[in-house]
Amino acid sequence: MAASSRVLVYGGKGALGSVCVKYFKERSWWVGSIDLVPNEEADANVVVQPCESWQEQTDAVLKGVENCLRGEKVDAILCVAGGWAGGSAGSKDFIKNSDMMWKQSVWTSSIAARLSSLHLKDGGLLTLPGALPALDGTAGMIGYGMAKAAIHQLTKSLGQPNGGLPEGAAAIAILPVTLDTPMNRKWMKDADFSTWTSLEFVAELFYNWTQGKDRPASGTLLKLTTSDSITKCTPAD
Amino acid sequence: MAASSRVLVYGGKGALGSVCVKYFKERSWWVGSIDLVPNEEADANVVVQPCESWQEQTDAVLKGVENCLRGEKVDAILCVAGGWAGGSAGSKDFIKNSDMMWKQSVWTSSIAARLSSLHLKDGGLLTLPGALPALDGTAGMIGYGMAKAAIHQLTKSLGQPNGGLPEGAAAIAILPVTLDTPMNRKWMKDADFSTWTSLEFVAELFYNWTQGKDRPASGTLLKLTTSDSITKCTPAD
Repeated sequence: MAASSRVLVYGGKGALGSVCVKYFKERSWWVGSIDLVPNEEADANVVVQPCESWQEQTDAVLKGVENCLRGEKVDAILCVAGGWAGGSAGSKDFIKNSDMMWKQSVWTSSIAARLSSLHLKDGGLLTLPGALPALDGTAGMIGYGMAKAAIHQLTKSLGQPNGGLPEGAAAIAILPVTLDTPMNRKWMKDADFSTWTSLEFVAELFYNWTQGKDRPASGTLLKLTTSDSITKCTPAD
Repeated sequence: MAASSRVLVYGGKGALGSVCVKYFKERSWWVGSIDLVPNEEADANVVVQPCESWQEQTDAVLKGVENCLRGEKVDAILCVAGGWAGGSAGSKDFIKNSDMMWKQSVWTSSIAARLSSLHLKDGGLLTLPGALPALDGTAGMIGYGMAKAAIHQLTKSLGQPNGGLPEGAAAIAILPVTLDTPMNRKWMKDADFSTWTSLEFVAELFYNWTQGKDRPASGTLLKLTTSDSITKCTPAD
């Protein structure tokens, strides 16, 4: 029965997260959102407090999720949390921005990995937010690149036997270049939007994977490249 | 004149750091050590306090280094700081250990990058501590792998134009499998030590690079593989 399918969206009030919440709700899934603010469309919300300690944040999120799942397992955990900040090693904000990127991206993705170990069904799906540019150097946004590279490597580790995921579960990272979000449209007014990846495309991709449709192997870093508004998915390496 | 050559060793009281301090001192370099405890062989010590904030640690190290350099630039910054901890996403210590790895490895390497931007001579050398296993997944030591992957990506970013290093300076990461340290000998008594990389080999490699001998291009991830006690250096990719 459809209503028994459950998904947690980490970053469920962000641009991509909100589209995912809506997409799965429309398909009658139970949807839990984890974010700094509640998503009113979700069936349950875990509201995260900003926090100086990675472990404290983990403990708080784990407790919040336990409270709303009440022993149920989930079919999918979609981690779409993250942010962006620039800066090379020559910038006085280099460390400040690297720290912010770490907290916004790696804390969330690794907590999502821990949640998956505890609450994902056998054969379930964990998606993680990578970035195509971080496969190489990213001189102008070093903190961002380090954080995304860590997420890529986390994905590969989770894809190995003994990575800690339930039997048959898959961890897959998506590596877009630019997502077509309102913020990106605001800050890059003159860009060619037909090369940006649509949020609905990503939500549908995730949904298909929960249905076993074209789901890549666990550990895959999946490059999403868009031109003429058509997105192509290609495994990295 | 030899005495005008200067090196900072980040992690200068660790196993590899101590060997580097000694190696450069024997060649009449001025040597500054940055570590949690002083290295008595060094000309100057910046003693780092454990710290909950990346920015605070950065500010403290930058101030300490400024005080001991007094406006002089350095020829090389060797970051050999780091640690090791295991754990998959299934471990209850996953986040605690990931946090420790991040602080021990990525804080230090990124602070070394910032120091290089500020205090390295044009054409100088920054070395960073990578790890060969982290080129792929590391299921049994996920926090360690994430941190090392971030250092690899940092190295690639610093190797690009506009990464923030001084003109002509090079950032190079070494990617050993296992270094032949007393701690590793203690914990892996039955290992084949002839496949471990000697600390003196690494110190000599660094020294050669400061002399312009066989120095790889900036941004190189250099794999160090040892068999029959002979170490081979091969750029990754």
